[in-house]
Amino acid sequence: MKILIIGGNGTIGSKVSNHFSKNNEVIIAGRTSGDIKVDIADSKSIKSMFDKTGLVDAVICIAGEAKWAPFNDLTEDDYYIGLKSKLMGQVNLVRIGQHYLNSNGSITLSTGILADDPVMKTTSAAMVNGGIHSFAQAAALEIPIGTRLNVVSLGMVEDAYEKYKDYFPGHNPVPMKKVINAYVRSVEGKTNGSIIKYYE
Amino acid sequence: MKILIIGGNGTIGSKVSNHFSKNNEVIIAGRTSGDIKVDIADSKSIKSMFDKTGLVDAVICIAGEAKWAPFNDLTEDDYYIGLKSKLMGQVNLVRIGQHYLNSNGSITLSTGILADDPVMKTTSAAMVNGGIHSFAQAAALEIPIGTRLNVVSLGMVEDAYEKYKDYFPGHNPVPMKKVINAYVRSVEGKTNGSIIKYYE
Repeated sequence: MKILIIGGNGTIGSKVSNHFSKNNEVIIAGRTSGDIKVDIADSKSIKSMFDKTGLVDAVICIAGEAKWAPFNDLTEDDYYIGLKSKLMGQVNLVRIGQHYLNSNGSITLSTGILADDPVMKTTSAAMVNGGIHSFAQAAALEIPIGTRLNVVSLGMVEDAYEKYKDYFPGHNPVPMKKVINAYVRSVEGKTNGSIIKYYE
Repeated sequence: MKILIIGGNGTIGSKVSNHFSKNNEVIIAGRTSGDIKVDIADSKSIKSMFDKTGLVDAVICIAGEAKWAPFNDLTEDDYYIGLKSKLMGQVNLVRIGQHYLNSNGSITLSTGILADDPVMKTTSAAMVNGGIHSFAQAAALEIPIGTRLNVVSLGMVEDAYEKYKDYFPGHNPVPMKKVINAYVRSVEGKTNGSIIKYYE
């Protein structure tokens, strides 16, 4: 398979890219590194990326940002960071990317446990994740027949535990093997419109 | 109680307003009618509304719009109609409104079944509803102690059945008595961070 992984050099992305590289042609896209530069907050940049890749069998997005801050510190504009990047960035990836999929192709988006079980300082990040869950279920009803759209929603992953553990009191890290398997289920399975949740 | 109902003259709002008016002081706000004019897509308008009401015991929002259209007809800008109105409108209502609540006061937002079980043409509307569910759970962790924030998420309501039934094949209308009770549970109960779902 020809697999495009946006954010393929990140904490999660590098493990997922390494796995799929064993038996597939992997193209890594990223804002600052990778085979193709892309800023998913800019739909023109997304279009330009797909014009470079041509048709692919799978698109995996493990990218997109949102501002973390106490509720009373987040300004209205702060919310738009997440709305433009992690939310509309992933929406535009589906809007545009659906036309660059081979038959049986799939798109996999990424969210996280905050959608269902938020912690302090995540009103923006949680909102964006929850929006993507509902969007994906709705869009899966309308994408071209034979293509698929799923979301991987993970708890705090093992490789990010040391950096983020203080934000997630009592949360259990998700082993990287399970992280990889979540993406494998979406790409190699037949499910459409699923939110694949590994929350430990 | 002094209850502010935004959208209190709408299909759902009028029934909810009638109910609470029996034993409470109800102030109705709306874009085109009501005691106070407000456009929730404009945070200045929200601030101006609360400056007129002063402190209240409950805020109920049954307002906000999002564009319904086939996935391939929705432009990037079309999504921002819902993001600015039903999503950020309700976020801003909590950001600003939390400071206008009496002790034990509550805010109740409104979404709908599309968040969990979307139908065709609702990628934007579903996304906004799902975003509000996750936002409210996150914000409920950080709003002032003693205040509460909940969401009412309904299936297609009885009074809108004739108008919308073709969009919701096989869905069962939610009786208006249950609709009213969902809001009563949020306002008169003690729950915080709940998504009150009546999907029939």
